[in-house]
Amino acid sequence: MDPVVLNTRFRLDRIRAARQAIDPQFLDTPLYQCDALGRRLGCTVSIKLETANPVRSFKGRGTELVTSLLADQGRTAVVCASAGNLGQALGWSGRRRGLEVTVVASRSAPTAKLDRIRALGAELELVEGDFETARERATGIAQRRDIRLLEDSLDIETCEGAATIGLELASGASSFDTVLIALGGGAMATGVGHVLKTLLPAVEVICVQPHGAPAMTRSWRERRVITTDSTDTIADGVAGRHPIPVVLDDLLEVADDAVLVREESIIAGMRMLLEHAGLVVEPSAALGVAAVLEDRDRFAGRHVATIICGGNVDMDAYHRWVRR
Amino acid sequence: MDPVVLNTRFRLDRIRAARQAIDPQFLDTPLYQCDALGRRLGCTVSIKLETANPVRSFKGRGTELVTSLLADQGRTAVVCASAGNLGQALGWSGRRRGLEVTVVASRSAPTAKLDRIRALGAELELVEGDFETARERATGIAQRRDIRLLEDSLDIETCEGAATIGLELASGASSFDTVLIALGGGAMATGVGHVLKTLLPAVEVICVQPHGAPAMTRSWRERRVITTDSTDTIADGVAGRHPIPVVLDDLLEVADDAVLVREESIIAGMRMLLEHAGLVVEPSAALGVAAVLEDRDRFAGRHVATIICGGNVDMDAYHRWVRR
Repeated sequence: MDPVVLNTRFRLDRIRAARQAIDPQFLDTPLYQCDALGRRLGCTVSIKLETANPVRSFKGRGTELVTSLLADQGRTAVVCASAGNLGQALGWSGRRRGLEVTVVASRSAPTAKLDRIRALGAELELVEGDFETARERATGIAQRRDIRLLEDSLDIETCEGAATIGLELASGASSFDTVLIALGGGAMATGVGHVLKTLLPAVEVICVQPHGAPAMTRSWRERRVITTDSTDTIADGVAGRHPIPVVLDDLLEVADDAVLVREESIIAGMRMLLEHAGLVVEPSAALGVAAVLEDRDRFAGRHVATIICGGNVDMDAYHRWVRR
Repeated sequence: MDPVVLNTRFRLDRIRAARQAIDPQFLDTPLYQCDALGRRLGCTVSIKLETANPVRSFKGRGTELVTSLLADQGRTAVVCASAGNLGQALGWSGRRRGLEVTVVASRSAPTAKLDRIRALGAELELVEGDFETARERATGIAQRRDIRLLEDSLDIETCEGAATIGLELASGASSFDTVLIALGGGAMATGVGHVLKTLLPAVEVICVQPHGAPAMTRSWRERRVITTDSTDTIADGVAGRHPIPVVLDDLLEVADDAVLVREESIIAGMRMLLEHAGLVVEPSAALGVAAVLEDRDRFAGRHVATIICGGNVDMDAYHRWVRR
């Protein structure tokens, strides 16, 4: 059977080629069934673990790709806005290739993320306000210094990097009914979604976002960009307010559903991942489990894969969340 | 250069062939540098993560191998003594192949391990006393029922399975100075040690055991089997008292050193792995970090790899250990 052709910005051959640019530490991450978790959730649960790498999130896949292209072009500097994980990944990939990396982040981002961005040698600029403010500041820095602005989800490399997760999901022996993907800017959801809907069109792609940061989900439902004035969620990694139109277009093409979950479900998901899977995850990485918790009937008896996309947490907050 | 030939029970071609029998979920586990941990330990630290699989320990490598051989032979049942992880792994591998699995364990083994052995459908028999008592009982069951007794570390398949970790360490791009290996019965230490000393003879192989369960380390130092009357350690996974002579012979051939660490160092190691690597590990898996903590000068500036061999803990005890 020919692969399905979708009307997105992605091309499968480019995604396959992207693997060559990515340090092996970020590739071929564990994919395994977690019985203990599945028993509690009433379905078969497979974990795709993106935290066992030097930056503890999937973002290294994209930053490896973009920095290898920058190095090939002889560029020496790059700036990005980050909720915290992209900045670490760009810091790591840039350091390896001798690039000067500037990261703009909100002062309210988790301290652990900010500390690690600094520790990787990146210049860290903090802004009052949220991720959208950081995006504006990063744009200004790129223009003023005439350096490359890396824009998460808008820049196709960030999406293609994330899409390599999809190749690994599709190449495994397992047959999932559903893949649950955390939805923020949309790089991971569109990238992974594109690969899955191309290679395994019967697999259901469900995006999950918190009620407290629902802009992209609402946009997907209304099929037009809807922004919000503020966000209110512990899932700092997915808390955007301004969906990017071309990313929404791709998401409309690849997602079967987009659901919103409550904060208490995210916390319950983090606790279950700790107690029954032995995994320390950040709130964004618990969105998939939260979605199952909120709609057990929908997933009962099915085989669900969830991408554990990041594990960078402030330990004090983490202990508070998971404590019984 | 020809590989070094060591006088052990191992053959590299058999270890390479073993990979074929092992479910891919247990193979090619993450191997990555953890900067945050390395900074605190004053050396470069690479993590070989053996917990991101269905049984959360490296033991699946060996049980996959042995159960595939049993299935080929038409055997239908197997019994083992286990401190908790082997039993889970054998339960998992046996269930997959339709084998009847009996596990004998100490009543004092972590509840989480015992619960998961039962959940995997194995018959669990609990004994008063410790792992050595369980070994005796398992031997009796095997004789009475005329079924295969799987003996950890004695049976070469358990060692060959563990040795496949060594192949992965040796095939990576990283160049370690030292590999720190938890030492219990010796399957992992001899298996991984054999591969490393064969393929990368310059890499130092250091075994780590708790002061509270020092039988194998003392035996290695004295070059003869030394047993102890009791054990006293939270590292339940390595708490044997009766070293197996042929395993000691292999260990004498492949280990450069064997060190003992204190309980407080194991706890500090677990806490560091949680706070700076985001990993939930059982005490045995923190032995490598504990060894660095107890002798920072020895490892200063070096590149150390440590195998995170298991992550099965009782959460109450775990929280108590890592709480500040």
